[in-house]
Amino acid sequence: MTDLKNFIETNKERFLEELFSLLRIPSVSSKAEHQPDMVKCAERWKELLLAAGCDKAEVHPTQGAPVVYAEKLLDKNAPTVLVYGHYDVMPVEPLELWKTPPFEPTIIDGKIYCRGANDDKGQAFMHAKAFEYLVKTNQLTCNVKFMIEGEEEVGSKNLYGFCEANKEKLKADVILVSDTSMIDSNTPAITVGLRGVLHAEIEAIGTERELHSGLFGGAIANPLIELCKLIAGMTDENGKVMIQGFYDDVRDVPQKERFAISNTPFNEKQYKQAIGAKILIGESGFSTMERVGIRPSFEVTGIYGGHTGAGPKAVIPTKATAKVSMRIVPNQDYDKIGLLLTKYVNEHTPESMKFNVSIDHGGTYYLFSTDNFAYKAAEKAYQAVYNKTPILLYSGGTISIITEFEKTLGIKSLLMGFGLPSDMIHSPNENFSLENFVNGIKTIAQFYKFFAE
Amino acid sequence: MTDLKNFIETNKERFLEELFSLLRIPSVSSKAEHQPDMVKCAERWKELLLAAGCDKAEVHPTQGAPVVYAEKLLDKNAPTVLVYGHYDVMPVEPLELWKTPPFEPTIIDGKIYCRGANDDKGQAFMHAKAFEYLVKTNQLTCNVKFMIEGEEEVGSKNLYGFCEANKEKLKADVILVSDTSMIDSNTPAITVGLRGVLHAEIEAIGTERELHSGLFGGAIANPLIELCKLIAGMTDENGKVMIQGFYDDVRDVPQKERFAISNTPFNEKQYKQAIGAKILIGESGFSTMERVGIRPSFEVTGIYGGHTGAGPKAVIPTKATAKVSMRIVPNQDYDKIGLLLTKYVNEHTPESMKFNVSIDHGGTYYLFSTDNFAYKAAEKAYQAVYNKTPILLYSGGTISIITEFEKTLGIKSLLMGFGLPSDMIHSPNENFSLENFVNGIKTIAQFYKFFAE
Repeated sequence: MTDLKNFIETNKERFLEELFSLLRIPSVSSKAEHQPDMVKCAERWKELLLAAGCDKAEVHPTQGAPVVYAEKLLDKNAPTVLVYGHYDVMPVEPLELWKTPPFEPTIIDGKIYCRGANDDKGQAFMHAKAFEYLVKTNQLTCNVKFMIEGEEEVGSKNLYGFCEANKEKLKADVILVSDTSMIDSNTPAITVGLRGVLHAEIEAIGTERELHSGLFGGAIANPLIELCKLIAGMTDENGKVMIQGFYDDVRDVPQKERFAISNTPFNEKQYKQAIGAKILIGESGFSTMERVGIRPSFEVTGIYGGHTGAGPKAVIPTKATAKVSMRIVPNQDYDKIGLLLTKYVNEHTPESMKFNVSIDHGGTYYLFSTDNFAYKAAEKAYQAVYNKTPILLYSGGTISIITEFEKTLGIKSLLMGFGLPSDMIHSPNENFSLENFVNGIKTIAQFYKFFAE
Repeated sequence: MTDLKNFIETNKERFLEELFSLLRIPSVSSKAEHQPDMVKCAERWKELLLAAGCDKAEVHPTQGAPVVYAEKLLDKNAPTVLVYGHYDVMPVEPLELWKTPPFEPTIIDGKIYCRGANDDKGQAFMHAKAFEYLVKTNQLTCNVKFMIEGEEEVGSKNLYGFCEANKEKLKADVILVSDTSMIDSNTPAITVGLRGVLHAEIEAIGTERELHSGLFGGAIANPLIELCKLIAGMTDENGKVMIQGFYDDVRDVPQKERFAISNTPFNEKQYKQAIGAKILIGESGFSTMERVGIRPSFEVTGIYGGHTGAGPKAVIPTKATAKVSMRIVPNQDYDKIGLLLTKYVNEHTPESMKFNVSIDHGGTYYLFSTDNFAYKAAEKAYQAVYNKTPILLYSGGTISIITEFEKTLGIKSLLMGFGLPSDMIHSPNENFSLENFVNGIKTIAQFYKFFAE
């Protein structure tokens, strides 16, 4: 693939102009007024995928934003790769924090500044260009399919049905996804673990009438205080979860994996500085990377009750609410965790209160084995481009659609991310490094080569 | 005073028409658009006080709503009574819950329904009519002064300055106030105790950046959870306050007083039913009436942090806030309690957090001795009208202006309330019983007689 470097250099200006044409469309999926932009962006993707060498490209309407599907099928005996990406972006507010116009791509110091530059227009577009290279130089050895959706930032809710309805069309040996990050621009990484999640709400309900805190203070139970006592008991001082049975199904992580995690570059000082934390805490016996990667967690994400406006108000409210979010790991089941949570709350309900638990929704954890042949191909591709073995990342987050792909389509997703932690995705001044953009195209092209071998 | 009953009966229609003329003015002090109504209501009070027999009546402008002052001075050797009341009312929303127009007094089943019918136009007006009776029948034996303010429902903030500036004019032997309640229409009560208060806010501050609860959950301290742990530790399961030194200055309440409290009619079942409480809780060794009357308390009146909108959001916020309100009793000092609170919070700050305590404001407790000669006169007056000794009430609430009167003017306030707990003050369908209105006039008239003796 000696001509790969030349091919990119020769075509780089055009690549960027094509990417910029996507970036200029404000395809914000969470805002109804951008509905025409979603269609416009999907149509633009269709054009670009056809131009890149697809034989067929379609814009599938859904109840929400359309799904772009495109393909180039070589040979039914050749391996098939399904590329997944998304063309929708997050809102750009607050506008005043942007240094460049949020929907006008601007290159400064080797970085493209624009909403979507990384997440996920920039990263998904690398796949289109690696594919174009392989097609135009007659080196494509795999069948390639593209599925680019427009609702990832709002929960991919119409993609579930699309997958269910198009199982045959979407058949593939692996799904390639670039929507995650590297360690730094010289240290590639493959995300091999994602935590699952269970979101729930706990309500503490006291008296039927809101009471005056002077006239009744000291004589009745206060739902704000009782909720605090409940929440306080659910973790120990290190954040270890005290819900009975919570850890029962957590797998013993093989030493090999723990060793891999311990090899993840991690600088505690920098980590703390980046988030502005005084100290790090967490379950004893585990490192920070293990705490967020292979151990489950319990967090409160919101709490409210009583008077929340300015100044004091003499009130004991009737109820208080806490939103809780638990991250789960193999082999925990979020339905079972929901039952354990409910059981804990019921067992800790004081006589004076009613506690309600309502389970919002769950998402399954995800693991990608390093024994998978797609992993081996990716490892070789990174080696060829970066001259380094990629780091294994166990991310604490949850990407529900990835586990859904496995469930509905029976296909594993390989998470080859080329973003950087400093790319400001979801925030003002989102950016994507041109170096990473180019290296991403190279690595993806190499992947196809090794994957077909 | 055999002619008192006849006097009231003969003039009742006129009394009500006069009261109704006050009630029809929507003098809502918390709403700027009612500013002209405040002036109108003050002017109407001036007219009515002159008509009732005052020699002089004035409307004093302030930075806010005006203060009405009126007087009839008989003899500088006669005892002087200062009547305090307020003409402002609470807002009437939600309007749809009113069964009658909120500012059109409507008599149904012997009760006047209207905003202000009880609080405090109705109760203050009884004083004007008792005074009129004494003047017109030549039985007035005291100097009488009236001070009717228009900002009680918003903290009486301009009355402090008015008192400070008019110490000489306001000189009196006792202040009479009808702005509290009886037990029921046959069981009179004098409020002899009020708790003080300290309002404060506690903030838990974690990381500088808001974090993703998936990516960071389990590795950093969560201010929502840490605030819950702090609050949880501040009371035991019965509501006993765990702040060191909190109870140090609480006086040993004499057995006589505890016995008086134990004589307060109290029906636990009705009490629970009225507020919709499953059970009552509170500091062990004390009855419910003692818990709210003579014991201090710690309540959380509001809590908030993180995501408080609909559905889940994957966030660990940077901070969480709790509003706390402590009721204090003799001889606790709210400044000292504020220091103890701050000390407790500082001592319980985990290494991962910053906790801020900000003291909002405090109010002093109030006690009226049954040995006071005004108390004796009131007791006789109730005896004459109800044929019963009034119950001693220790109210859990705080009336800051009452302690301010003692501090600035050096005068004790006698709280002779004729409201009922069912009068719905501050709520839709506020009402005041005609029977209580008439008995109030009678009792107040009798008070003057005994007070001059």
